[in-house]
Amino acid sequence: MSSINPNFHFRKASEPSVSELMDGVLNQNLTALSKAITLVESGLPHHRRMANELIDGLLPHAGKSHRIGITGVPGVGKSTFIESFGLQLIERGHRVAVLAIDPTSSISHGSILGDKTRMNELAAHPNAFIRPTPSGGNLGGVHRKTRESILLCEAFGFDRIIVETVGVGQSETAVHHMTDVFLLLLLSGAGDELQGIKRGIMEMADLLVIHKADGENRVKAERAMAEVKSAIRLFPTPPSGWLPEVQTLSSIEKIGFDSLFQKLDRFFNHSMNKGFFDFNRKEQSLAWMKDALGDSLFFWLENQSDFHEKWKLQEEKVLLQQKSPFSAVSEILQNYLPQ
Amino acid sequence: MSSINPNFHFRKASEPSVSELMDGVLNQNLTALSKAITLVESGLPHHRRMANELIDGLLPHAGKSHRIGITGVPGVGKSTFIESFGLQLIERGHRVAVLAIDPTSSISHGSILGDKTRMNELAAHPNAFIRPTPSGGNLGGVHRKTRESILLCEAFGFDRIIVETVGVGQSETAVHHMTDVFLLLLLSGAGDELQGIKRGIMEMADLLVIHKADGENRVKAERAMAEVKSAIRLFPTPPSGWLPEVQTLSSIEKIGFDSLFQKLDRFFNHSMNKGFFDFNRKEQSLAWMKDALGDSLFFWLENQSDFHEKWKLQEEKVLLQQKSPFSAVSEILQNYLPQ
Repeated sequence: MSSINPNFHFRKASEPSVSELMDGVLNQNLTALSKAITLVESGLPHHRRMANELIDGLLPHAGKSHRIGITGVPGVGKSTFIESFGLQLIERGHRVAVLAIDPTSSISHGSILGDKTRMNELAAHPNAFIRPTPSGGNLGGVHRKTRESILLCEAFGFDRIIVETVGVGQSETAVHHMTDVFLLLLLSGAGDELQGIKRGIMEMADLLVIHKADGENRVKAERAMAEVKSAIRLFPTPPSGWLPEVQTLSSIEKIGFDSLFQKLDRFFNHSMNKGFFDFNRKEQSLAWMKDALGDSLFFWLENQSDFHEKWKLQEEKVLLQQKSPFSAVSEILQNYLPQ
Repeated sequence: MSSINPNFHFRKASEPSVSELMDGVLNQNLTALSKAITLVESGLPHHRRMANELIDGLLPHAGKSHRIGITGVPGVGKSTFIESFGLQLIERGHRVAVLAIDPTSSISHGSILGDKTRMNELAAHPNAFIRPTPSGGNLGGVHRKTRESILLCEAFGFDRIIVETVGVGQSETAVHHMTDVFLLLLLSGAGDELQGIKRGIMEMADLLVIHKADGENRVKAERAMAEVKSAIRLFPTPPSGWLPEVQTLSSIEKIGFDSLFQKLDRFFNHSMNKGFFDFNRKEQSLAWMKDALGDSLFFWLENQSDFHEKWKLQEEKVLLQQKSPFSAVSEILQNYLPQ
């Protein structure tokens, strides 16, 4: 597999056309890919129309990757893990794109943004692409951006897409719904507890990795693994029919990756042989269409005059129990929807 | 506390006005309550307007109850449990309304409907009210109906509202979002596993009850309790700050109810003292308002001409990867939304 061609020149500096972006992405021009992602991240209506056209044009070239969701609380060592994991994927002949969802970044001004600088070696590799989290916008918007960025990266030729998220918000479910496999990084805590993982997330995981199983931590990590194993026995079998697997891993001592890659291979074999892989992708597309409907309706509404003022006013009435939520919403909508 | 007055006569038989319904509910007329619930369950636009007016008028009288969510898989013995639980609440001086959410009922023609006949003793009690699940409509609509029914029952004077759901669908999250406490009924399985509980639900529970801990089952139930206890230690502390409690219970042998009532008292003391009760209700109202916005927009759209045909057409294109979900949705919406 050839590495990415950095010598393809991009014609216009400012606002490239859809066909220029499309050619650029298909010709593996990284500047074009970056600009294409910037386009899908834009909230401007004419950019949205262009983005739709671009994505539609690239769709036939997208889809041919393994989409790997990775989550874990801050401090679990996601960047260190992804750097090692990504480099080993590249060694195995893959091209790796790393995308991030971080709904808190519009508040904290990009907590994952800093990750790019921490994944130095991976970021510098010609077969890797790291895109910091899209900032701003509502959650639905952020998810849309990441989903479309996945397609762009695939059309470009990346065959392993890592979508990471901080394990503190609602975005885990979103990542779960846009990836083929879901990997949860855990930390053995001070006592015998696993620290800080958000409710419901453990049950979405296909692979659970007790991270930082190095040095003195190894014993604690083994104990945590046993606990997690007995806990997940209580969980129901996920829709894929795959029984979640648990292991320890050390990114700094590079222990556990072989075992992880074997598990991933087994997962994808299982998932493809059982037809779950395709089924899941189709289900995800339909779910995405429903999300898109909601997002588009909200987007339209948010751009109507005085919508936010009217919303705030009714919100206060609801909190004071002067109005029911439905009646409040009816009153707002009758200003905007044609009868 | 006086029992419900069955002698209040209702003036019109067919279509009562909003003020008649309001008076009826406030005067504890059960026919008026039933008709009011039928009104909020109706999908007709003029009924929706009436329902909004009714709910707004009754809001100042609503809210003064403990809303108790109960879930568990079919076969866990929910009806038996609720009957015993409800009768004991009444013995303690409460008035009990039982509402049900069952998103499958429009397919199975009311699987919970049959429960009413199974909760004979409770259903016949003058201080109890059992309303079978609303049938038909989309999930959002079903949730709306239940939320508004809660308010109607509260305005009537019921101070303990039980909202039950089958533990097989998405409605558990909805019930969790409309109640103050969430109780999960579990069954000890054939082996040492807990059977069939849906992913993510265990982590939402404030109280976990291993049900049918009677006869030969008692030992298995105790063992299941120990397992659940060690599993939930791994879960994060819920927003209420309350650490979920686990116990065994037998509805037929009436063992475990005292302990359950003590736990419920402790839960509500904790929740009210820490300010979580009010905080949670406010958060629920705001979340409900957002849901209402989505529901209302979808409702409007579904009533536009050819919407379903257009949706189906685009859905096929999305599945064939000829169109991205966003672009498909844009094409549909430009027919309906004013620019």
